[in-house]
Amino acid sequence: MTTTLPADGPMRAAIDAAKQRVADLHAELPRWNLVAWTAGNVSERVPGTEGFDDVLVIKPSGVSYDELDADAMVVCDLDGNLLEGSRNPSSDTAAHAYVYRHMAHVNGVVHTHSTYATAWAARGEEIPCVLTMMGDEFGGPIPVGPFAIIGDDSIGHGIVETLTGHRSTAVLMQNHGPFTIGTSAKAAVKTAVLLEEVAKTVHVSRQLGEPLPIEQTHIDSLYDRYQNVYGQKG
Amino acid sequence: MTTTLPADGPMRAAIDAAKQRVADLHAELPRWNLVAWTAGNVSERVPGTEGFDDVLVIKPSGVSYDELDADAMVVCDLDGNLLEGSRNPSSDTAAHAYVYRHMAHVNGVVHTHSTYATAWAARGEEIPCVLTMMGDEFGGPIPVGPFAIIGDDSIGHGIVETLTGHRSTAVLMQNHGPFTIGTSAKAAVKTAVLLEEVAKTVHVSRQLGEPLPIEQTHIDSLYDRYQNVYGQKG
Amino acid sequence: MTTTLPADGPMRAAIDAAKQRVADLHAELPRWNLVAWTAGNVSERVPGTEGFDDVLVIKPSGVSYDELDADAMVVCDLDGNLLEGSRNPSSDTAAHAYVYRHMAHVNGVVHTHSTYATAWAARGEEIPCVLTMMGDEFGGPIPVGPFAIIGDDSIGHGIVETLTGHRSTAVLMQNHGPFTIGTSAKAAVKTAVLLEEVAKTVHVSRQLGEPLPIEQTHIDSLYDRYQNVYGQKG
Amino acid sequence: MTTTLPADGPMRAAIDAAKQRVADLHAELPRWNLVAWTAGNVSERVPGTEGFDDVLVIKPSGVSYDELDADAMVVCDLDGNLLEGSRNPSSDTAAHAYVYRHMAHVNGVVHTHSTYATAWAARGEEIPCVLTMMGDEFGGPIPVGPFAIIGDDSIGHGIVETLTGHRSTAVLMQNHGPFTIGTSAKAAVKTAVLLEEVAKTVHVSRQLGEPLPIEQTHIDSLYDRYQNVYGQKG
Repeated sequence: MTTTLPADGPMRAAIDAAKQRVADLHAELPRWNLVAWTAGNVSERVPGTEGFDDVLVIKPSGVSYDELDADAMVVCDLDGNLLEGSRNPSSDTAAHAYVYRHMAHVNGVVHTHSTYATAWAARGEEIPCVLTMMGDEFGGPIPVGPFAIIGDDSIGHGIVETLTGHRSTAVLMQNHGPFTIGTSAKAAVKTAVLLEEVAKTVHVSRQLGEPLPIEQTHIDSLYDRYQNVYGQKG
Repeated sequence: MTTTLPADGPMRAAIDAAKQRVADLHAELPRWNLVAWTAGNVSERVPGTEGFDDVLVIKPSGVSYDELDADAMVVCDLDGNLLEGSRNPSSDTAAHAYVYRHMAHVNGVVHTHSTYATAWAARGEEIPCVLTMMGDEFGGPIPVGPFAIIGDDSIGHGIVETLTGHRSTAVLMQNHGPFTIGTSAKAAVKTAVLLEEVAKTVHVSRQLGEPLPIEQTHIDSLYDRYQNVYGQKG
Repeated sequence: MTTTLPADGPMRAAIDAAKQRVADLHAELPRWNLVAWTAGNVSERVPGTEGFDDVLVIKPSGVSYDELDADAMVVCDLDGNLLEGSRNPSSDTAAHAYVYRHMAHVNGVVHTHSTYATAWAARGEEIPCVLTMMGDEFGGPIPVGPFAIIGDDSIGHGIVETLTGHRSTAVLMQNHGPFTIGTSAKAAVKTAVLLEEVAKTVHVSRQLGEPLPIEQTHIDSLYDRYQNVYGQKG
Repeated sequence: MTTTLPADGPMRAAIDAAKQRVADLHAELPRWNLVAWTAGNVSERVPGTEGFDDVLVIKPSGVSYDELDADAMVVCDLDGNLLEGSRNPSSDTAAHAYVYRHMAHVNGVVHTHSTYATAWAARGEEIPCVLTMMGDEFGGPIPVGPFAIIGDDSIGHGIVETLTGHRSTAVLMQNHGPFTIGTSAKAAVKTAVLLEEVAKTVHVSRQLGEPLPIEQTHIDSLYDRYQNVYGQKG
């Protein structure tokens, strides 16, 4: 296994591009009011080339969002060991790394304590699919993952166990907060933003009564169209 | 029917002016917190001249609000077919086009997933007219439209069916979110902003009890004055 | 009675200074999220000198907050007649004018539809004094004024009737929204900001139970200290 | 006791550096929506050197957040007497000073009326520890302090009495609002930000049911790890 990162070449170019992307995406978290102070983190997998293993780029621990430029980002291997960077990696790095090790199609992971998603997580209650936007984006309800303590693989294990075989790209870790996954860091950030939006809208709706359910066939139809038609596909 | 748009002349000038207006108005949606990520859209009808049919200007699908300048706007005919623009039109274009085809006095349409309006929509519950501002602007309650799936004319049909003969210029599409109409795109954006404001205020009021009703004669009086006296009429 | 305003001299200087102050203070309303679109207005009395009667400076009707510089402000006499300005005065001018005619110590009036204050107003329910900040600033509960229709003196009359002999400098006009008064436009804006803050905090507190009452002697003590000691008095 | 502050030397340098830090930290209060108008204040202890006693730097009373640069800050002794500055110190200075006199490890104090924390305070109800983030940061529930009137030592006494021997660095003073303490002003500001975040999240969670409790052994584990591992320790 290669643990020294190259100074130039394609792998270096890929790492530097990912650092810039991940730094820029961190700015989206306060912009959409998903984080307080230094909480929250975005990572992206850099697939290995030239004989290097996959690595991940993530934010350092406990640093202000104002200071998060590309140079501040740190690089870790997929066991969470620091490979590059002058600061400690985010204390959630082990969870991100676990996801990348066990879900090959995932290239981006985001964690926040966004208010409404975390409020559902504190009750250990999934968010029911009562909005067409949820059908589009999540294909059904947002599931709850187990209570897990930071410090070993239990958070990562809980994320992977909950999302494997599930349409949802978001999980509400009990008493903790949401993790979202995607085919890129940007996709995972988008999901984190939309998750909080639906978490809030369904919460508000339920405050004054019971939202109307959407039939499963309609949810399937929304999900299928959105995954295959929406946006700029080429 | 003419499907090639002119390179110059009055129709071109009208299209380009509409592109600028619609691009500028999109900035109002995040400013007033009506949208998350790339959700939401504003369109405006450009009445045909010089033998050209009416067209509509709308935002492209799945593009960040930061990139929505006049050049990014797309032009479609009133069947929703792309006439001009390098990207796909918004996936809600068919609904906008349907409204323009069936409501001749409407020149602007706005769709958002704004939180409080969508929360009422998820319960399929109209917003009662308990604020003088609602009497002014909407002339009564905000009605609910039917559940409808994207992909055919059912959303457009639901909007037109609900708003025809109704004072309200806003409809809450069930489980989906609000659409607003106006004599211009700016008027429809204004209505989208005020709709969310009243949706939130009435929600908050009802959280701790029942708002006091306003007598119908007072609602009529408010609506009549506001439609005829308010603002800068010339 | 003099209805032509002077081109120079002390009265002109006082009017122009008030226009600048009132324009600047309008920027505080969106800054503190008290208004949507063009709703809300601030006015200030300019005491008459050189044989001129008192006049008031207020914002024009239906104009965007982005366009509200000093030149956009309009000047009216205390019957609400336009004396200076190229646009119609705010449709709430009659209410402001009524207050100045009947409350000699009031030199500033603010009207908003701020969400939480308006939510209490829609229920016709006064805000109980359960925060030390309310004791400081308002000296007790925030009272409710009568339902009144725009177009005659009934709004102004309702404000004056409710606030005369009351410690509170804010009134919640039923189904409508708050009006605040002060010894200057700035003082009335400050009160509008703090009113919304206490309206929201007491609302949130009551959502999960009953706030603890504050004894009247403590409210009196808070109010007395704040009116006489707080801030920069010299 | 020395009451004249030096014009140069180490004590002057320490005071000036603290003024800059405290001025900069005040900008965090409106940034995170913890304050309305001029409410709220941050202070920092400057440990005495060269024979000078400890002093504290705090914001002046009733001054806009836009005007709070380093020069606007005032310096008081630990009895709350003004030593330097052209304006009156914050009306909460006595409470800050009391904390510094009685808690030697505290070098920063923050007071706000942040909405959700104050809403819990108005009910006199502690915030239960149902979020891993609360276990990390506060090590358990956020306690309530007694009702106390400004003007003598009762606020300071209530803070010290409540927080002495308690893991929490935040206290909800009944009917009033939160005070937070820290080893620096920055640490106390961070705590004020995170306090409001957890106050809001737990409130929202409880609106629709009962959050799941976290076992005490897990809370202890979270608290221990966070206090000893998190962030950039060297």
